[in-house]
Amino acid sequence: MSIDESDIPALARGCAVLGTGGGGDVRTGSLAAIGAVREHGEVPLIGLDELDDDALIVPLSGIGAPTVSHEMIHSADEPKRIAEEIERLFGRPPSAIMSSEIGGSNGVAPVAWAARLGLPLLDADGMGRAFPEVQMVSMYVAGLPADLVIMSDIVGNVVTIRPVDGLWSERLARAVCVAAGSSALMADYVLTTVRARGAVIEGTVTRAIEIGRATEGAADPLGALQGSLGAVRLITGKLTDVERRTTGGFVRGTATIEGTGDDRGRRLTLELQNENLVALEDGRVRAMVPDLITVVDTETAAAVQTEGLRYGQRVTVLAWPCDPLWRTPKGLETAGPRAFGYDLDYVPVEELTAHG
Amino acid sequence: MSIDESDIPALARGCAVLGTGGGGDVRTGSLAAIGAVREHGEVPLIGLDELDDDALIVPLSGIGAPTVSHEMIHSADEPKRIAEEIERLFGRPPSAIMSSEIGGSNGVAPVAWAARLGLPLLDADGMGRAFPEVQMVSMYVAGLPADLVIMSDIVGNVVTIRPVDGLWSERLARAVCVAAGSSALMADYVLTTVRARGAVIEGTVTRAIEIGRATEGAADPLGALQGSLGAVRLITGKLTDVERRTTGGFVRGTATIEGTGDDRGRRLTLELQNENLVALEDGRVRAMVPDLITVVDTETAAAVQTEGLRYGQRVTVLAWPCDPLWRTPKGLETAGPRAFGYDLDYVPVEELTAHG
Repeated sequence: MSIDESDIPALARGCAVLGTGGGGDVRTGSLAAIGAVREHGEVPLIGLDELDDDALIVPLSGIGAPTVSHEMIHSADEPKRIAEEIERLFGRPPSAIMSSEIGGSNGVAPVAWAARLGLPLLDADGMGRAFPEVQMVSMYVAGLPADLVIMSDIVGNVVTIRPVDGLWSERLARAVCVAAGSSALMADYVLTTVRARGAVIEGTVTRAIEIGRATEGAADPLGALQGSLGAVRLITGKLTDVERRTTGGFVRGTATIEGTGDDRGRRLTLELQNENLVALEDGRVRAMVPDLITVVDTETAAAVQTEGLRYGQRVTVLAWPCDPLWRTPKGLETAGPRAFGYDLDYVPVEELTAHG
Repeated sequence: MSIDESDIPALARGCAVLGTGGGGDVRTGSLAAIGAVREHGEVPLIGLDELDDDALIVPLSGIGAPTVSHEMIHSADEPKRIAEEIERLFGRPPSAIMSSEIGGSNGVAPVAWAARLGLPLLDADGMGRAFPEVQMVSMYVAGLPADLVIMSDIVGNVVTIRPVDGLWSERLARAVCVAAGSSALMADYVLTTVRARGAVIEGTVTRAIEIGRATEGAADPLGALQGSLGAVRLITGKLTDVERRTTGGFVRGTATIEGTGDDRGRRLTLELQNENLVALEDGRVRAMVPDLITVVDTETAAAVQTEGLRYGQRVTVLAWPCDPLWRTPKGLETAGPRAFGYDLDYVPVEELTAHG
C-alpha cells in the first residue's frame, strides 16, 4: 500500500482525532505532506515484516510548543540532515521513517519526511496517540534503552544526545528545542527491525486513515466517528470557558463544556497539558490519561485541537481506551495520571463510564 | 617537559591571575589535578611540533556558572565519555588534550583530564585568558568552522552539537549546560595538528606556571607579579562595594575599589560578566576587554576571583595586554567591548594608561 495525495486529508483528520487536542496543528503536517507527495510521488506504507532484521527505522517527530509549530514548517533539509547523521553514526542509511506520535501534525508530517528522503513509511508509531513528553513512547515502555536522540532545527544545527535515560532525553531535548526557537525535528531512538518488534504500536497509520474516512460523506458524522473509535460520548454542549497559557514549551490550561440538549444541566471540565488529560464532572473523573479524550465539532465530528478551542463552540467530548501497552505498570508509570502530576489512580475509561 | 604534583599550585595561581576573575574557582581544578596526577602519574606537556599532522587535539573546558562549579567536581568518567565519542566519530582516538581556556579552573583541570586519559597536555589554549562564552576562542577568531561540540555531564549524558556557527554553538551548549544542572565538560572543536597551527595560543600553560612561580618566596609579591605580567597597576585600595547576581548561567555585577595610601581619594569600578571586563575611573575607561584586568590581594598578590570578592578586602587591580589575536578586527568583534554590550571603542590598555 502507498499513501498518495488523496489519502492525506483523511490521515490528517484521523491524526487530529488521535491527537487528543495536541501533537501540533494537523494543517501544518498536511501542507508539508501534500507538497512533498506532489513533488516526490506517493509514499510506500510498509509493515515490519517487509524490512530486513537489521534495517534502520527512524522514528521522527516535530518537538515544540503547539503555539509555535503553527507558525513553523520544517524545511526539507531537516530530515536529510538527520538521515546523514544516522549514516555517519551507523555506517548505513536508514531504511524507513516512522511517526513517533500518530496524534496531531506528527502523524501526518512523516509522509513529507519519507517522501523527501525517498523512503517508505512504517505503518506504526510510538504512542498510538499524542503525548507531550519525549520519553512517553512505546519504545521506552518496552524497555529499549533511550540511548540516542538526533535533533535538527530550521537553522541547520544538528544535535545528537546520548542520554542516560528517557527522562534525561526529554530534559535535554526540550532545552535544545527551546534554544532552537521552540521547534525542531527529532529522531528519538534509531531502531533495527528486530528491536522494533513489540516496541512500536503497529497499524496506527492505517487506523488513522480509517478514522478519517469514517466521517467522509456520513449522514451522522459524530455517530460514525464514535463507532470507528469505539468511543463513549462524555458530553455534548458548548465551550463556556477556556484558559490556556504557554510556559517552557508547553500549553497548560482547562476547558469547560456546559451540556446542551439531553446534557443540559451537566458540566464537564478538561485538564490540558498540550493534550486533553483528565475529564472531570462534578468532581468525579470521567476519563483520564493514557486513555484518549478528544473534543470534536458536534456537527462535523472534526477534532478540535487545544489551540482551536473557542468560547461558544458546539462540541462533543469523546473518550476511548488507549493501546494496552499504556495500561501496563511501566506504561502507567510513564504516562499515567501521576506522570502528569495528578494525584489519581488510573481507572480505565470503560469502568469510569460504565454507569455514566 | 612534564607536569607533576609540585607544578600544580603554581599553575593554579597563574591560571587564577589569567582568569581575570572568572574561569571557575581554581581550587576545584587543582584538587582534581592533584588527585589525578597522584593516581596516574605526571602529565607530559608537549608542543604542536611533537604531534603528527593528523593527530587529534581535544580542547576541553568545564562550562557553567562559577557559583555552581564551586560545588561540582567533574567525575573521572566525563573526559572518557568525550574521548569515546571522538573515537566513534573520527575512527581514531584523541592524541592530546588542550585547555580551551587557560584562565581559572579550566586552565588547571585539563591536567586531571589528560592524566585520567593517559594523554599529553598541549602547551596552548584557546583564549590566553578566560572568557564567558563558548565562541570566544582563538579557533573561532582564526576562522575554523565551529562545526562540532561534544558535551558530557556528571550524570553521564553525552550531547554532540554540529552547529551552523559559533554563536549557535554557544546558544545550544549553554542550553544543554543549564539543563544538565549548570555544569558540563565540553570539547569545543576537535583539531588536527594542521588545523591547530595559528589557531591556538601557544605556550600558555608554561606561561601560567611561570606567573605562578614569580610570586613564590618573593619579598615583594605584587611587584614580582606585575613584572612577570608586564602589567600596570590601576589602583591599590579597599573593596567598598560588590554587587553580583547569577542569571542564565552567568554572574554579572560590579565591584568598587576605593584607593588607599598613594591612591587615597581615587575610586575604580569594575564591570563584571563572570570576568572583569571594564575598569572605570571618574567615568573614564582605564582598561577594557579583551585586555586582562585582575584583582589581586595587595599583600600576597594572589588573584581574587569574582566569587571571592568581599567587602573590605585590601586589593590591587592590575591590567595588561591580551594576546595580539584578540586585537584583530575578528578578535574584537568576537570578544571586544561591544561583544559584551558595552558601547565602547576598544583602546589598548597601554594607551589608556600611558598618562595614568
